[in-house]
Amino acid sequence: MISSRISRMSSYAIRDIVVPALKLEKQGHKILKLNIGDPNVYDFDTPKFLQKALITAIKTKKNFYAESEGVPEVRESIAARENRLKGLNIKAENVLPTIGASEAINFIFGSHIDNGDEVLLSGPTYPLYISITTLYNGKVVEYKTSEENGWQPDIADIQEKITPRTKAIVVISPNNPTGAVYSKETLKAIADIAAEKNILVVSDEIYDMLTFENNFTSIATLNENGKYAILGGLSKVYLAPGWRIGYVAFKGSGLEELKESCYKLARARLCPNTPAQYAMKAAMDAPLDFVKKTIRKLKKRTLYCAKRINKIEGLSIVKPEAAFYLFPKIEKPELQDDKKFVLDLLHKKHVLCVHGSGFGAQYGKGHFRIVALADMETLKTAMDRIEEFMSEN
Amino acid sequence: MISSRISRMSSYAIRDIVVPALKLEKQGHKILKLNIGDPNVYDFDTPKFLQKALITAIKTKKNFYAESEGVPEVRESIAARENRLKGLNIKAENVLPTIGASEAINFIFGSHIDNGDEVLLSGPTYPLYISITTLYNGKVVEYKTSEENGWQPDIADIQEKITPRTKAIVVISPNNPTGAVYSKETLKAIADIAAEKNILVVSDEIYDMLTFENNFTSIATLNENGKYAILGGLSKVYLAPGWRIGYVAFKGSGLEELKESCYKLARARLCPNTPAQYAMKAAMDAPLDFVKKTIRKLKKRTLYCAKRINKIEGLSIVKPEAAFYLFPKIEKPELQDDKKFVLDLLHKKHVLCVHGSGFGAQYGKGHFRIVALADMETLKTAMDRIEEFMSEN
Repeated sequence: MISSRISRMSSYAIRDIVVPALKLEKQGHKILKLNIGDPNVYDFDTPKFLQKALITAIKTKKNFYAESEGVPEVRESIAARENRLKGLNIKAENVLPTIGASEAINFIFGSHIDNGDEVLLSGPTYPLYISITTLYNGKVVEYKTSEENGWQPDIADIQEKITPRTKAIVVISPNNPTGAVYSKETLKAIADIAAEKNILVVSDEIYDMLTFENNFTSIATLNENGKYAILGGLSKVYLAPGWRIGYVAFKGSGLEELKESCYKLARARLCPNTPAQYAMKAAMDAPLDFVKKTIRKLKKRTLYCAKRINKIEGLSIVKPEAAFYLFPKIEKPELQDDKKFVLDLLHKKHVLCVHGSGFGAQYGKGHFRIVALADMETLKTAMDRIEEFMSEN
Repeated sequence: MISSRISRMSSYAIRDIVVPALKLEKQGHKILKLNIGDPNVYDFDTPKFLQKALITAIKTKKNFYAESEGVPEVRESIAARENRLKGLNIKAENVLPTIGASEAINFIFGSHIDNGDEVLLSGPTYPLYISITTLYNGKVVEYKTSEENGWQPDIADIQEKITPRTKAIVVISPNNPTGAVYSKETLKAIADIAAEKNILVVSDEIYDMLTFENNFTSIATLNENGKYAILGGLSKVYLAPGWRIGYVAFKGSGLEELKESCYKLARARLCPNTPAQYAMKAAMDAPLDFVKKTIRKLKKRTLYCAKRINKIEGLSIVKPEAAFYLFPKIEKPELQDDKKFVLDLLHKKHVLCVHGSGFGAQYGKGHFRIVALADMETLKTAMDRIEEFMSEN
């Protein structure tokens, strides 16, 4: 018999959709995979200087168990990077290297969320937040982000949904799955509400430097009285998702207990991969010129898909502003079951996307997510097929 | 306010004791650290062929997110290794690569332990099991391992302590912290009890090939009707603790639900370090000749410490049979507070060990753990200082 916590835990939609695709592949079909936000399965690779840093760490005996709270010099470099790029003022002792940002989410929610506590998640949101909230018996409350307003959070809706049990609000900007970059004004409004109500802001900044128009702001800079857990890592900006290395940086007063609790959990998993920590130091210390090339490619691919989608009868899309996600709306009333839509598209056209309701029952439904990381040729074929699919259904 | 689960979670003793030692180091003192089971901080290093395998993986673009359930060919190699070395018959689909064996413990307990469920842990045991059991609101029940009988489990005591709420029994052989290798007869008796009562056996085999006399048996081979979760990894035998890569292999019928639950948790952390998975494949496929050299060094160091301890007035020790741990008994009645003993030894002689009660309140007290991984020179100095300490106290 399985524990109650696992029974109530929502499964992780992005990975769950893979099962039927694998079946088709076993039957010999080639699937165009627009489902996973991993640049490295396409024509991206981890920058050579980072590979070199990792290899040097391995060769110079950095293969021991590191401190559970992270290698001190790595923590220093993370803090310096956050402070330099975002205008923050974080000390190394408030930074915890983690096994990807996903481990940071796990630690924070495990520490902060008790039975019945409410977590405000953007609707739509990254599904891991739904899984982890339900794992810890928290209640998922989706706040509206307005498609008609470029997927910006609806401040009035956030205000309405706050209750005495609201323990955290998660802000993902640049956003997965919509590709929106939240405006400074919107972020400021959220920061002010959270500070006033003493609610922890979990700011997922894993895509921070991947904006097309250089318009990123960290919410943690916008209200000095707030409490922030800022998430980052090497998976997206630094193109090293498989290394599973990231971090959380705590900012604000009154966070000692939460931080200590995360460190306690950290000790019970010993440490993140040690050589990868040293590679993270190299990443944090590096100038970001190499990212420009990545952004050029991402922007070209993402905006190409957006243009195509907007020409397809029965679909519409808000133009993404960062990263590599698109979250089209299915306009045809008869195709509103997005899970069925995605499965039909997979079986009929061998194009794999993720159903929108996997990103939140309330605001994700009637949509699907496209990852625009594949090469232009593949994306063109995929868009052709989606166009065909829409004309045939 | 911190969640109830973290408040009730026992902290991890081995890492907790480090704090006062760091303070002394900051004051300029050199501490002889016999506290952490990490070969790589001493004169051991990860074998070159494994370093090479990891580097090749990085250079050949294995930097993507891998399957959450593990890279298929890596799972194949793990199963083959377990089957070849232990006479098991495990299929790759029942193997899950994890972020160290510690993640496997977390997944299994998270899936299997509900509020108030009882877990039988060897007394003394590896403290991570206490932390994770309490994290999931399980009840720690220590079964006696008899010092007078070479730290073998006391079968009668196990039988007495089983209740209808007993959900799992953890067997660590070779054992941390005692260095005992459980006899085939003892393991068979445990396997039979567990199979009869339908209790999951968690067999921690992370030290499997590090026995001094080549007398390792996997409990999973001893009763075909049992349910087993077998833990292994690269941290000890393969000298790569900082890579944080290990596995769990499931054996027995009726484990589908547990396995699926672990896979569900696995999807919510995406994957273990991908290049490290490929390195694990190289480890699993390799002949074990290189381990002989490791064992020679470990045996020499461990038995030297045992010999020295047994000559010290007020201490006694059962001769270890594997790995690098010693668990001496403090015979002097006035020194029975083992936490105080360890802190006094640290402050007066600058030798860092771990207090026995950190390995279990009931059977660990009045003892302390020594890790015999340092070079002979350091170990000699440390033993001299322990001898002095005992004569002065």
